[in-house]
Amino acid sequence: MTVGIIGGGQLAQMLGLAGIPLGLTFRVLDPSADPPARSIGTFIHGAYDDTDALVELARGCDVITFDFENVPSSSVKFVQQHCPVFPAADILAIAQDRFDEKTTFEQRGIPTPAFIRVDSIDDLQIGLQELHFPAVLKTRRQGYDGKGQAVIRTPDDIEPAWRRLGGVPLLLEQFIPFEREVSILAVRGQKGETLFYPLIENVHREGILRVSRAPAKKIDTLQSLAEKYARSILDKFQYVGVLAMEFCQYQDQLLAIEMAPRVHNSGHLTIEAAVTSQFENHLRAVCGLPLGSTEIQEPSAMINLIGSLPDLTAVLSIPGIHVHEYGKQQRPGRKLGHVTVTGKTWDEVEEKVAKVEALL
Amino acid sequence: MTVGIIGGGQLAQMLGLAGIPLGLTFRVLDPSADPPARSIGTFIHGAYDDTDALVELARGCDVITFDFENVPSSSVKFVQQHCPVFPAADILAIAQDRFDEKTTFEQRGIPTPAFIRVDSIDDLQIGLQELHFPAVLKTRRQGYDGKGQAVIRTPDDIEPAWRRLGGVPLLLEQFIPFEREVSILAVRGQKGETLFYPLIENVHREGILRVSRAPAKKIDTLQSLAEKYARSILDKFQYVGVLAMEFCQYQDQLLAIEMAPRVHNSGHLTIEAAVTSQFENHLRAVCGLPLGSTEIQEPSAMINLIGSLPDLTAVLSIPGIHVHEYGKQQRPGRKLGHVTVTGKTWDEVEEKVAKVEALL
Repeated sequence: MTVGIIGGGQLAQMLGLAGIPLGLTFRVLDPSADPPARSIGTFIHGAYDDTDALVELARGCDVITFDFENVPSSSVKFVQQHCPVFPAADILAIAQDRFDEKTTFEQRGIPTPAFIRVDSIDDLQIGLQELHFPAVLKTRRQGYDGKGQAVIRTPDDIEPAWRRLGGVPLLLEQFIPFEREVSILAVRGQKGETLFYPLIENVHREGILRVSRAPAKKIDTLQSLAEKYARSILDKFQYVGVLAMEFCQYQDQLLAIEMAPRVHNSGHLTIEAAVTSQFENHLRAVCGLPLGSTEIQEPSAMINLIGSLPDLTAVLSIPGIHVHEYGKQQRPGRKLGHVTVTGKTWDEVEEKVAKVEALL
Repeated sequence: MTVGIIGGGQLAQMLGLAGIPLGLTFRVLDPSADPPARSIGTFIHGAYDDTDALVELARGCDVITFDFENVPSSSVKFVQQHCPVFPAADILAIAQDRFDEKTTFEQRGIPTPAFIRVDSIDDLQIGLQELHFPAVLKTRRQGYDGKGQAVIRTPDDIEPAWRRLGGVPLLLEQFIPFEREVSILAVRGQKGETLFYPLIENVHREGILRVSRAPAKKIDTLQSLAEKYARSILDKFQYVGVLAMEFCQYQDQLLAIEMAPRVHNSGHLTIEAAVTSQFENHLRAVCGLPLGSTEIQEPSAMINLIGSLPDLTAVLSIPGIHVHEYGKQQRPGRKLGHVTVTGKTWDEVEEKVAKVEALL
């Protein structure tokens, strides 16, 4: 089978590395000339909304997927006329707009921090009266890795936040003094069969994911809660593929922060730590193949390599680590790679995490 | 770093899949138009002895290796003028000739079945008086997967064996009623640091590897014996990369059958079962990077897919299996892929092996 991928970043690269052993071949569309996934198959250089490039991508594909949630949903709708696309354009469109996304959470009975639509500074003033300080002002679209966000702690923060973000549709969100962030990765096949990975615990800094650990500790009822919420989305949209949902934990509640209709950075550790990686399971799902076990076999952690790369020789000197470089140009704040460590105990894992972090 | 690979078969493909996450890029030379490793980097279509193609391969490479032991050693010697090559041409040349190979074993004090050079039917008659029936007549060169061999059990077998194999340099070898076959994979870095994988137990049928299991059971002193023999070869040749040695076990002895100066079919299970796969460690070695742990973490088995491929959906329905298709045309006796299974116990592994074999 041939799989088309709209977007040729590291997620597409890792999909390719997981899919080639399954006998899959790939066609990749990306607007940049030399994206990480360039080497995993036939590369089509073109904009996400270039219909000629999309038709060229679809040529000979059995199925198309995407590695980036800001691919225009209109492009997905267009290319759907030429080839099946999973996940479908409807959920992609919703995930691209924080207001629609959170409205969907509410409609599905999934707790989420309170939110108000903000299209003017008056909306913002009124919203702050309702949600109180502190609150978070966010752009509805194009936000990722903490971009397009401002925390408003006092009235003095209102003007600067508006100057920085105003002019595009916004959202004001209740600030949650959360205890930790966790994510769940779910995978749903074409016949509706659904599996969940164990909860993953995530540490962000400056809005960017730094470290993930799985299976998350002290889970109690949280796993079943997260599965219930994810299943509600999957079934509503007849979803096919991997879906990631991020939550913040407040006491014994999970509040949904966002969802990503694709493989997810917090799931990179499944390459080494799970029986079947998120990348292989996404491909199995979109290709109509049986899903693989989502069991995580031992304590594991993933450390993102952001902005610059550490010395490869030094990193590889740490026993039992796994390096993933994406082949991208170094740039501040850019995800250039990640390192996965596994161990028989959490102590062993944390020792390796500390060694990797000392090199960053 | 950029790695050139002479030969673009499944071994090169798996080297690429292991190396891309390390940030390596690849250039691959192969005489066939669409070899399995075509998609892992820049592909150069040319004969192994095409000097223009070899120069083109070397362009921009930091190091060159090979995935096939029948690459002409003269080609390796030639391309060495343009770029470092590991392993070196000297051991490649020896591994290509069973007589030279077994002579090397003898010189290094490594037990090997008794052997005699055969260049005429008279040599064969004399040889049989010395080695007795049964014995095995083998071509000195180009034999793999059981090709170029004939067992001589009675005087009546002499003529047909000679008719089939005579005319090229031959070797007569003592027939060993061995108990089992095992292989050791060793990896040696550029500074001489050396690691060994646990012994792997191999089952051949019709001269082709069918199933490997690791770690091999009932090892006693065999591991240290195999390591001693492999180390003797590695140090003699100042070897860099993965070396495979195959042995037959007779009582508490190991008799060396052959060596392969490359990653090896019996080591494919290291992709899932070892901390660091043979492919990653070969690349780490030839690139001058630190070697990774060779620990095999749980019982595992590899089943070769030979001649035709089973139904992928049926195979992927077996929980906890890992499929590797090489993207080759089906042909009797051809290695088209393999399946790896791992488990917490040998019972669990054998149950999965039986399920895979039932689909072949």
